[in-house]
Amino acid sequence: MLGPRVWSSVRQGLSRGLSRNVGGRASGEGRKVDYGKLEENLQKLGAFPFKGFVIQGSNGEFPFLTSSERLEVVSRVRQAMPKDKLLVAGSGCESTQATVEMTVSMAQVGADVAMVLAPCYYRGRMSSAALIHHYTKVADLSPIPVVLYNVPANTGLDLPVDTVVTLSQHPNIIGIKDSGGDVTRIGLMIHKTRRQDFQVLAGSAGFLLASYAVGAVGGVCALANVLGAQVCQLERLCLTGQWEDAQKLQLRLIEPNTAVTRRFGIPGLKKAMDWLGYYGGPCRAPLQELSPEEEEELRLDFTNNGWL
Amino acid sequence: MLGPRVWSSVRQGLSRGLSRNVGGRASGEGRKVDYGKLEENLQKLGAFPFKGFVIQGSNGEFPFLTSSERLEVVSRVRQAMPKDKLLVAGSGCESTQATVEMTVSMAQVGADVAMVLAPCYYRGRMSSAALIHHYTKVADLSPIPVVLYNVPANTGLDLPVDTVVTLSQHPNIIGIKDSGGDVTRIGLMIHKTRRQDFQVLAGSAGFLLASYAVGAVGGVCALANVLGAQVCQLERLCLTGQWEDAQKLQLRLIEPNTAVTRRFGIPGLKKAMDWLGYYGGPCRAPLQELSPEEEEELRLDFTNNGWL
Amino acid sequence: MLGPRVWSSVRQGLSRGLSRNVGGRASGEGRKVDYGKLEENLQKLGAFPFKGFVIQGSNGEFPFLTSSERLEVVSRVRQAMPKDKLLVAGSGCESTQATVEMTVSMAQVGADVAMVLAPCYYRGRMSSAALIHHYTKVADLSPIPVVLYNVPANTGLDLPVDTVVTLSQHPNIIGIKDSGGDVTRIGLMIHKTRRQDFQVLAGSAGFLLASYAVGAVGGVCALANVLGAQVCQLERLCLTGQWEDAQKLQLRLIEPNTAVTRRFGIPGLKKAMDWLGYYGGPCRAPLQELSPEEEEELRLDFTNNGWL
Amino acid sequence: MLGPRVWSSVRQGLSRGLSRNVGGRASGEGRKVDYGKLEENLQKLGAFPFKGFVIQGSNGEFPFLTSSERLEVVSRVRQAMPKDKLLVAGSGCESTQATVEMTVSMAQVGADVAMVLAPCYYRGRMSSAALIHHYTKVADLSPIPVVLYNVPANTGLDLPVDTVVTLSQHPNIIGIKDSGGDVTRIGLMIHKTRRQDFQVLAGSAGFLLASYAVGAVGGVCALANVLGAQVCQLERLCLTGQWEDAQKLQLRLIEPNTAVTRRFGIPGLKKAMDWLGYYGGPCRAPLQELSPEEEEELRLDFTNNGWL
Repeated sequence: MLGPRVWSSVRQGLSRGLSRNVGGRASGEGRKVDYGKLEENLQKLGAFPFKGFVIQGSNGEFPFLTSSERLEVVSRVRQAMPKDKLLVAGSGCESTQATVEMTVSMAQVGADVAMVLAPCYYRGRMSSAALIHHYTKVADLSPIPVVLYNVPANTGLDLPVDTVVTLSQHPNIIGIKDSGGDVTRIGLMIHKTRRQDFQVLAGSAGFLLASYAVGAVGGVCALANVLGAQVCQLERLCLTGQWEDAQKLQLRLIEPNTAVTRRFGIPGLKKAMDWLGYYGGPCRAPLQELSPEEEEELRLDFTNNGWL
Repeated sequence: MLGPRVWSSVRQGLSRGLSRNVGGRASGEGRKVDYGKLEENLQKLGAFPFKGFVIQGSNGEFPFLTSSERLEVVSRVRQAMPKDKLLVAGSGCESTQATVEMTVSMAQVGADVAMVLAPCYYRGRMSSAALIHHYTKVADLSPIPVVLYNVPANTGLDLPVDTVVTLSQHPNIIGIKDSGGDVTRIGLMIHKTRRQDFQVLAGSAGFLLASYAVGAVGGVCALANVLGAQVCQLERLCLTGQWEDAQKLQLRLIEPNTAVTRRFGIPGLKKAMDWLGYYGGPCRAPLQELSPEEEEELRLDFTNNGWL
Repeated sequence: MLGPRVWSSVRQGLSRGLSRNVGGRASGEGRKVDYGKLEENLQKLGAFPFKGFVIQGSNGEFPFLTSSERLEVVSRVRQAMPKDKLLVAGSGCESTQATVEMTVSMAQVGADVAMVLAPCYYRGRMSSAALIHHYTKVADLSPIPVVLYNVPANTGLDLPVDTVVTLSQHPNIIGIKDSGGDVTRIGLMIHKTRRQDFQVLAGSAGFLLASYAVGAVGGVCALANVLGAQVCQLERLCLTGQWEDAQKLQLRLIEPNTAVTRRFGIPGLKKAMDWLGYYGGPCRAPLQELSPEEEEELRLDFTNNGWL
Repeated sequence: MLGPRVWSSVRQGLSRGLSRNVGGRASGEGRKVDYGKLEENLQKLGAFPFKGFVIQGSNGEFPFLTSSERLEVVSRVRQAMPKDKLLVAGSGCESTQATVEMTVSMAQVGADVAMVLAPCYYRGRMSSAALIHHYTKVADLSPIPVVLYNVPANTGLDLPVDTVVTLSQHPNIIGIKDSGGDVTRIGLMIHKTRRQDFQVLAGSAGFLLASYAVGAVGGVCALANVLGAQVCQLERLCLTGQWEDAQKLQLRLIEPNTAVTRRFGIPGLKKAMDWLGYYGGPCRAPLQELSPEEEEELRLDFTNNGWL
């Protein structure tokens, strides 16, 4: 009855940041995506036991890419990444029609799953009915399974739990990545969608352990771009019931995670990638590089926890 | 010293909603923009003493249009509208580069002025420095003057006054449309940019009189799509110092204005257009039509004030 | 039918800050209210054409006073102030019963009008029904007229317009002081309560002109504690239709007003009082004095506008 | 070096709601606290393995009690409750001086620990420095240990983590009850205060398991007033590492917990107490009883999870 399950338990990580890797011009404007560097990053990340990769989530700078760049990045990743891993591609747009088209195109270039951001510009009119209509249409017409994507810090909109529960009954909607960080909400979604075998994924490494504790089946974590081994280890500790060790590790990951997400955003994540053996590189404008003071604070968030 | 002034005092109105006029299919998905109806609307609106028209503001559903649709709409409007009126085109995109390109293209298809929304998806990193970089780049490269566009209800971001003051010194940035409704802020912007002859425009008819009272030079009002004569009359009363009559008229416009903006949004505005002799038509998904209860409340907001 | 009108048109100002004047000990804790200084301030403020004084509004530090201090301050003010001016006393408490008792006591010590803050600790349950019940009970049992007090920056609660409209029909509820600064809302309240002869008062000098422009009958302004003559002059310009001069004056008052309210709060207002010939003095803890940097910024907000 | 530890691991629950039990008059105004019913409730709750009771937290309706009522309730609870359990009393007031006085008085009537709410009316000026000054003064002068109380839904103020870390170094500040529900923040506070042996307590049952998972030592839960056995069982399952059973139980507690806190507030909690064998009784005004529709939804939140 329910839709195809493309993964029994998504591991974590899923290098959302990959598409961010852009080339070497001095200024962020007009620069091309550096696919060579992207492939190098992927090669390194492929060594970790991730279930797959999420491309074109918020850290992939998707709002700064053209439609063809969005597709090209996914296509390149598909070719470069291990065949046995999942490729989840962000395909959300503001209009329902554009989202359907992008979702179909993402499937065509090799995505296994589409992760669909809530439309948000007209958030005052995004009632439960409007959201259900949007996601149902997309899921009906998508050749691949759909994962809901809730990221209120970026969209200013929190998908209502009742809406998520209703959507969980659609055979082609298989889960949600929730980046809001409200573990009570995460628990409630798990509780109310259990019969649908709906996959609730922690959207950030800051609350990964807590999410596993209440029943989440995986995570999609920006931090995995820089501390991939550690995020994978945290998952393993949770899944094998080693909660004390998991707790110790989780606590050491909170500050670096906040630093590369809420606090310093994409420029922070890119800078940390540069430090930790990956290619981060510059952002596209209007995102600005970190100031020296910010960079120092970012560094402290890693060194104070023993990661640099 | 300052950039070209394209209008001495923008009248109000500036039918932002025009591009919303889309054709007659039963469902909002995939439907085409109905350019015939758009031209009919323009013809009717051309009878009012508007200074010009704003195309592709929030009520123009621009996030639901493709880039080529955005340009086509502006091109058609240019051809259909009176030659002596200004055409202000919304050209904001998330990335600086895309915004520059869209702005240049808007000029090519006939826009007199570009109105540029603040990039907002990564609002946590949209510092004053980032915003100044973005707008400066756009204004530097734009062949036409730039108007800032602040609409926090949609973007979740309020352009800081200090940032606006800094940007007002750019020779090609000539004004701001502020839809936030904080008249203290509007007054402060006027006070701090007086020497730059910067044009502060009320972004909604609900606070148009108050904005004129503190020194705004015009307005850009969704309500002008349905009550164009009244909005023009309100401006005239303000400009000629007939404040008592202005007050009476202003008070009768607040409820219908709130109804077609904050309360019922684009579907409310379209429905009211249908009632008042224009073509409103359906929305694009995910926006939904009004429920019968909402439609009744919308009607009351017009009838209770004597407009229907 | 309607309740007694205690003033035909409240002038502005209404030195809310008076009760803040506290004695000379080095630390804010435990210090007594300095009634001598309070009377000196009142004597100076009595020279301006205020309609009256508001005591125990937010700037009166009422949450830091005991019940007996609240009453004592009002009693002293009653004795010291000109007999022909109104005394409006803040009497809001969290519970309905305590508010009734405080209101009755305020009347007994000489208040002409009670200004009643919305209860807010349980704001999640402060439905329209709860607020109507609360204010109706207070107004029923109050021997003096009641003014609603809406100050969302402090209470985290915005009295719904519909609730205000309902309450405006109570014979003993005669007006509202609205400090939220949303002039569209102020206009709407005026529009919907016109038949009740309900008095809408601007709650801050930053939007005083705009409020008069849409029909407010007065204001209650923290800024009047330091720039009393100017606030009175602004009112006079508005009431006599000298809008151009009013506009010039209003714009010069915005920065100092914001400085002594939202930006630097009570310590900012007290410091400015010290500069401008009144007794400001220290705050009660936990409020802290301004830092030297803040004090410098405060000073600039006055000097840049020609007030110091 | 560090302050006295009054409990090694606070169990959960800690019937905050006890002081809410008020007598039988038809209207909430003016009614007396029904100490007889309070003692009956205590007797029943004493049967559960709570570490102690929190009196005069938010659910104790403390803002509606006079100072003498606040003290009388604590005094009665001290006499009625088991000698070997802790009594934690809410003693926060807006001014530092009043808070010190109330804290000292609470100790005199038998409180073992004072739980101190952040002052919030002037939240715009409640800088880290102001908060540190306030809490340090209170802790310096308190004869009993102090627990910080963070409840942003009521105060509109989130104690900054850095402020909490600084305060954790005070020898008489031994912990925090955090009701905000952000488990990342809870983890971070635990991580940064480990050396101080600072006790982080989950402020609500909705995230109790998650809090234990990241290292919290206990909880203070409104839900324990009605499902005391279950909340104690959840703690035991967490402490003994039975995470799977803990998860199952936690998920069944989320909806009833939300119902008696965020959703239906104190009237919801009281109604549920009436159903579950305690005395709930009426609220004080302005809080209103539940509507029949709300009561039905509240019931469903309990019945759907098998608790009624």
